[in-house]
Amino acid sequence: MGTLILVTGGARSGKSSYALARAEAVSTIRHFLATCPVTDTEMGQRIDRHRREREGRGWTSCEEEIALVSRIAALQGPGVVLVDCLTLWVNNLLFQADRHDEVFDEQALRREIGQLLAAISGYPGTVIVVSNEVGMGIVPDNQLARHYRDLVGTCNRLIAAAADEVVLVSCGLPLFLKTARPGGI
Amino acid sequence: MGTLILVTGGARSGKSSYALARAEAVSTIRHFLATCPVTDTEMGQRIDRHRREREGRGWTSCEEEIALVSRIAALQGPGVVLVDCLTLWVNNLLFQADRHDEVFDEQALRREIGQLLAAISGYPGTVIVVSNEVGMGIVPDNQLARHYRDLVGTCNRLIAAAADEVVLVSCGLPLFLKTARPGGI
Amino acid sequence: MGTLILVTGGARSGKSSYALARAEAVSTIRHFLATCPVTDTEMGQRIDRHRREREGRGWTSCEEEIALVSRIAALQGPGVVLVDCLTLWVNNLLFQADRHDEVFDEQALRREIGQLLAAISGYPGTVIVVSNEVGMGIVPDNQLARHYRDLVGTCNRLIAAAADEVVLVSCGLPLFLKTARPGGI
Repeated sequence: MGTLILVTGGARSGKSSYALARAEAVSTIRHFLATCPVTDTEMGQRIDRHRREREGRGWTSCEEEIALVSRIAALQGPGVVLVDCLTLWVNNLLFQADRHDEVFDEQALRREIGQLLAAISGYPGTVIVVSNEVGMGIVPDNQLARHYRDLVGTCNRLIAAAADEVVLVSCGLPLFLKTARPGGI
Repeated sequence: MGTLILVTGGARSGKSSYALARAEAVSTIRHFLATCPVTDTEMGQRIDRHRREREGRGWTSCEEEIALVSRIAALQGPGVVLVDCLTLWVNNLLFQADRHDEVFDEQALRREIGQLLAAISGYPGTVIVVSNEVGMGIVPDNQLARHYRDLVGTCNRLIAAAADEVVLVSCGLPLFLKTARPGGI
Repeated sequence: MGTLILVTGGARSGKSSYALARAEAVSTIRHFLATCPVTDTEMGQRIDRHRREREGRGWTSCEEEIALVSRIAALQGPGVVLVDCLTLWVNNLLFQADRHDEVFDEQALRREIGQLLAAISGYPGTVIVVSNEVGMGIVPDNQLARHYRDLVGTCNRLIAAAADEVVLVSCGLPLFLKTARPGGI
């Protein structure tokens, strides 16, 4: 039975660094699941640099834009899995559906999250997922952006409800929205 | 003398669900004031569904885009009133003024909030108001959006200053910005 | 050796009022450093009114869009310095570089922040800096806005890491992200 920690925060809030430090405090067996599609050379170089830095500290890394569920199911425990980040995964699911002229609505999201939570729950270790807070600005003009914002909000709530711990990071510092059960990590 | 609770948070943060649960813990006499203008069929159906769900749990519901003050003044207590949400009320006041070629500035907002707080204070029960956090994104390009963002920020501060309790919801979870007075609810 | 307090929050969150009240509780020797460029008459009048209000309470005020480092270095202590705000300073640095066809990237920002922190550390009193939280909305369409958002996020993290106290203000109310060292103010 896995332990689930959700780390959320704004852009450049330090949420990824916080999640990485938390993960490294949990276990020396470390799996990184990156959901970020590589869209340009500069980003590719940055991702490579981060991966090499992690490798020096015992991380295995894998890029996965869509199939987080099967990736997590394939991992052996005990250990720690860091998924960075769910917001891009939701983005990738939305664009995949769009390419196939399918609708990716809240119901479809709930199915995906249900499967993700089942995979996490089956992992015999700790899973830390990073997510963005995107709902505290003005309503976007763009309809797709509004839909995406709604999906990310729903994703965060569903994951938070199932999580053992939820942390909101601002200025690199944690605010604890939910703390681990006594006896947990 | 009423008790006032402000529940704020981003879009799809779970603030409305949290406010509803808080309200249902306070009293079985439950009044819902919705400020949301019905702009399309899908939204109308969603609002209807939510209303029917609430009715099964003893809520009376009323849609009111502008005249929150007289609506609250007309309610008998004791009981609980849930206003969802103030951000749309500010939006409605702004567009009403615009339709009459009037200016809705901070001074006008302060007058409206003063009257609202007087009505709330006269209600012999608990009033829970929901509001959006809209100021934590990048400055909007659009001048009207900037003005609206400023008004909502001022509204939240004025209500919070008068409130007995203020809760910021993120990922469906509460962060307590102000806690109720000893002897309060 | 100075004490550093970072006060962050969204637009119209009440962060400046909170920072002002905190500063006035620290010392009667009060220096205000405003980074806001005056862009129109209405804004100029508002800034003048705020300055006159502060002067009645013993503040000296100075507008400085760029050279915060030398301004802080020139101040005699003990006393309190309030910088309002860093977000506009980053904005000013970005536009200054742009006018000179130079790049203002994260590395350039880190150099500026390093110098600012050295100046603050040399001030024999308390320095309170105000900053905006701008990263909790949807990703901006505009590339410059995304770059600015990243810079502000990095700025907040670097300042927060060096600060003795970090406060996130919402609805005029403080959430404490980092609390002062025992024996500090």
